[in-house]
This record gives sequence, C-alpha cells and structure tokens, in this order.
Amino acid sequence: MSQIERVAIVGGNHGNELTGVHLVKKFQQYPNLIDRASFETLALLGNLKAIEEGKRYIDKDLNRCFTNQGLENPHISSYEDTRAKAIQHILQPQNQPFVDVIIDLHSTTANMGLSLIFSDMHPFLLRLGAYLSSTNPMVKVFVNQQSREGGFLRSLCELGFVIEVGAVAQNILNAELFQQTEQLIYGILDYFEGYNQGNIPQTNSTLTFYQYIKSIDYPRSSRGEIKAMIHPQLQFRDYEPLNPGDPMFLTFEGKDIFYEGESTVYPIFINEAAYYEKGIAMHLSQKQQEIV
Amino acid sequence: MSQIERVAIVGGNHGNELTGVHLVKKFQQYPNLIDRASFETLALLGNLKAIEEGKRYIDKDLNRCFTNQGLENPHISSYEDTRAKAIQHILQPQNQPFVDVIIDLHSTTANMGLSLIFSDMHPFLLRLGAYLSSTNPMVKVFVNQQSREGGFLRSLCELGFVIEVGAVAQNILNAELFQQTEQLIYGILDYFEGYNQGNIPQTNSTLTFYQYIKSIDYPRSSRGEIKAMIHPQLQFRDYEPLNPGDPMFLTFEGKDIFYEGESTVYPIFINEAAYYEKGIAMHLSQKQQEIV
Repeated sequence: MSQIERVAIVGGNHGNELTGVHLVKKFQQYPNLIDRASFETLALLGNLKAIEEGKRYIDKDLNRCFTNQGLENPHISSYEDTRAKAIQHILQPQNQPFVDVIIDLHSTTANMGLSLIFSDMHPFLLRLGAYLSSTNPMVKVFVNQQSREGGFLRSLCELGFVIEVGAVAQNILNAELFQQTEQLIYGILDYFEGYNQGNIPQTNSTLTFYQYIKSIDYPRSSRGEIKAMIHPQLQFRDYEPLNPGDPMFLTFEGKDIFYEGESTVYPIFINEAAYYEKGIAMHLSQKQQEIV
Repeated sequence: MSQIERVAIVGGNHGNELTGVHLVKKFQQYPNLIDRASFETLALLGNLKAIEEGKRYIDKDLNRCFTNQGLENPHISSYEDTRAKAIQHILQPQNQPFVDVIIDLHSTTANMGLSLIFSDMHPFLLRLGAYLSSTNPMVKVFVNQQSREGGFLRSLCELGFVIEVGAVAQNILNAELFQQTEQLIYGILDYFEGYNQGNIPQTNSTLTFYQYIKSIDYPRSSRGEIKAMIHPQLQFRDYEPLNPGDPMFLTFEGKDIFYEGESTVYPIFINEAAYYEKGIAMHLSQKQQEIV
C-alpha cells in the first residue's frame, strides 16, 4: 500500500450525535491538533441542516445516501441526496480518489464503548484495529461485510471506517466519551504517521473482532407496534456472550422471551434509539480471532 | 380534603419519552391494573402527533401550553395549542374540576431515578412523597414553586404532579425503569385507595425534599454556542452535593470550570437533552427536611 496523503474526519453525519459534531468543530478551530507531518487532515461536518435542528436527518438518513445509484442520479434532490453529492465532491473531486482514509464519527445509545466498524477485512484496517484494541480495552472491532452496499459514507474510500461511541443519549454530550474519542483519533493519526514513516508501532499480532451475522427485530404486533423491550439482563451488555436460553426481551406484560439460537452469539447495537424505526433491536455477531 | 374520585395518568406529554407512552398504552389495554374500588382512573396519551413522529413536540412544547391565556385564546391554533385545549376538555369538561389528581409521566437523560415533581407544598402531596420515598430509596421529591405559572399540564389540578424517570435516552425503552415506574404508579394508586378508605399507610413523618433555587446554563460563546460540557465528575450525580470549588463543566479545550457559589447545592436535571435549547445545563436545588 502506498503512503497516506489525505485523511478526512467527518462528524454529524447524523445531526443528533453530538460527540462527532463538537469534535469536528474543535478540529476546525484548532487544525494543528490533527495535522501530522506526512499527511493532510480535513475535518468536515456531515448533515449541516440536521445538526442545526438536532435531528438524525431531515428527509432521509444521509448515511444511506452514498450509493453509486444515488450519487450519479441528477434527478433526486432531497436535502440528504444533495448533501451526499456535495460531500462526495469534497472527498472525491472529479470522482477521483482524493482522500485515502475516511473516519466517520458516530455515537449510539447502545453500550458500544469505542467501536471501530469496518466494511471489509482490509489488512491495514485489521492491523490498525489490533494495535488500538491492544492499547485500550474499550476499543472493539466490528466487521460488517453486508454493509458495503448500504450507501454508507465510509464506502467512498477503501480505508473508510466508523468510530461508534456509546452509550450516550442523542443530543447530549458525555464529556468522558468526548475525551476518549478524541484520544482515540489522535492515536489513529499517530499510527498513520508511523506507517508513512516506516515506523508502525509494535502491535499485538492477534486481533479479536466481532463479525456481523444478522439483525434481530423487536417482537411486534400485526400492526407493527413493539410488544417487548430489551431484557434488563441484556441491556448495556454489548459484546458479551448471549447463550441459547438466555433472556433477550421482556414483554410489556412482564414475560421473558429467550434467545432460541443454537450457539453462543455476541449482541451489539443493543437498544439503539435510531434503529427502532429500522426494525433492529440488536445485531448478532460472532467473536473471532485473526493473526494480522 | 374530600375523597379522590378520579385520577388521570398521562403519558407522552413529550412524544419521545417512551416509558410513559408505553405504560399508558398498557393501562389502556388492561384497565383493571389501574382500577381501584373507591375511584376511577383514566389513562391518556398526551402529544399524539409527536408520539407518532418520535419527537418531543411538533411546533412547541405541549407541556408549556397549559396557561389560562393559551387555553382561553380561540385564535391560537398550533398543533400543541389545539391538543392542550382538547386535553383540558377531557380533564376539566365545562372548565370544572373533574379529575382530582393528574400523574404526568416523563423521562429524562439525567440520572433522576424516580423523581416526583411538585409545584407546591400541598400537605397531601408531601405526605405521599414521604411515604413513597421511605419505601423506595430511588424515589426523590423535587419541589419547584416557580413552575406554577409555566403552563405545565400538572397545573390543571391541585394534586397534579410529575413522575420523572431516568437516566434513559430519548426514544428508547429501558425495561428496568419501565417496571420500576409501573410499580411506583401502583403504589401511588394504592395510597389513594387507602386515603379514601381512611386507612393511609404508616409513613415516615420526615420528608427529605429538594427545592428549586435556580437554573444554570452552559458556558456559551457570543453566538450562543456551548463552549463546555457537564464535567465528568458531575455527570449522572443528580441529587448529590455540589460544593463551592467542585468542578461543574469541562470546556472542549479540556479546562475545568468550577462551581463558584457560596454554599452546597444539589444539582438535578444534569445534562437533560431537551434542555440544551432551553438554556439549562442543570437546576440547582436545596436539600430540605419537613415534618409532614
């Protein structure tokens, strides 16, 4: 792989996820914080109008608009479709690769700690994940190969990935998570600098990561209304094992609903506020290890 | 005081506070849960349109619309003004007292546990608060006399009060808090039933409560943008003492801002998401005791 020449850090791809919004505003005000000798770093706000209104999005989820079909279609013109094209124009002028890395900052009501989300098993990203998770136990690596065609911002670039931090409510700042995310970003930029200078930090050669299996919806009535909540014994237990027979949901009447799979899985994105409307109560993942 | 004849339980006065919404839906489906021999209980959803859209409100905060001025003005017609009039019509047909008690269910991103919010020191409410807080340490009593003229739903009725539960993010359900709120409501209804039957439960005669002093905004720039976050040492510490010199905020640059008051106070509603736009980072209160 050649040198990293340009890195983009995007915050507020969802307007009500304030950690990324205020980190990017800080980086825009103090660009020296993200400057490194061997590459350029660009700090960019995503969904400007949604940030202003404190919403995830105005018309549709911006972080599902980066499909080739959408970006190349001159006839679609919702706020988010237009903004996606504008962001692509900044990150890929003349449709040419311009930035080598996109770091897309998100937050979640699920207890995801400091998660790195990759859309594929790119060896450079896996080594980065192994390094970061070996130096900070809050860092977890989630690989979701299904998400490559989802229209995510990170898909604009081979080395695009998400930092997903939580648990934090929408539209608030948690100072501790803000500072932990900031330090993680500096660690990533320093790693890139080391890579460019042929001086990658010593790293654990075994990466533990979590691979997407499938999504689970809430139990719902025939009219689509949820009939149960995340079980208290599962709430905030992202990345912990869920065994066959463990409680998963609790109905409003107080009845337990158990996990009926055949093997142990690792739920993540448990009880993310924005996923109720998407029909996702959690993702299930497999815990895996890889020598990197 | 005469007998309690009718009680109203309202959920979803704010549409993105799901605990109350789903409790009221449950009570509407199983009315026997809130029936008691000596009085009638009505379960009512507040801001219907905002509940559907998963927002706090559509045009304006419904829970500020219950002013005499607003309710009597035929010329104002935003969705919430209209809905406030409709709710008043249900709770006070012909502008006559009809329900004796309003229990208004809210949730918050602040760590408020199970808080009862009273707008005055009504002896019946204080005795109820003393009873409930003596049987459950999560129950706290907050008295905000400034709020009597604020257009709150609870002000429609002498015995109107709020149950405020947290910490829970907007637009999610926390099953444990859901069940704790449900049990608290049953405890309140049982207390009313005991009162009507001349058989009030034995109670602690000393009530510890927290009285509103003032609200504190975030440090802001001249353009109104926040410049600091709730300090990690204060986050989730609602109802705990804040002493002069204790850290209160942390700027985005990482600088501590300290509490400069002259005496110990008890912050509450710390980091409530909906209060950023209202210019409130927290309320300060005084801890007090009263023989009831």
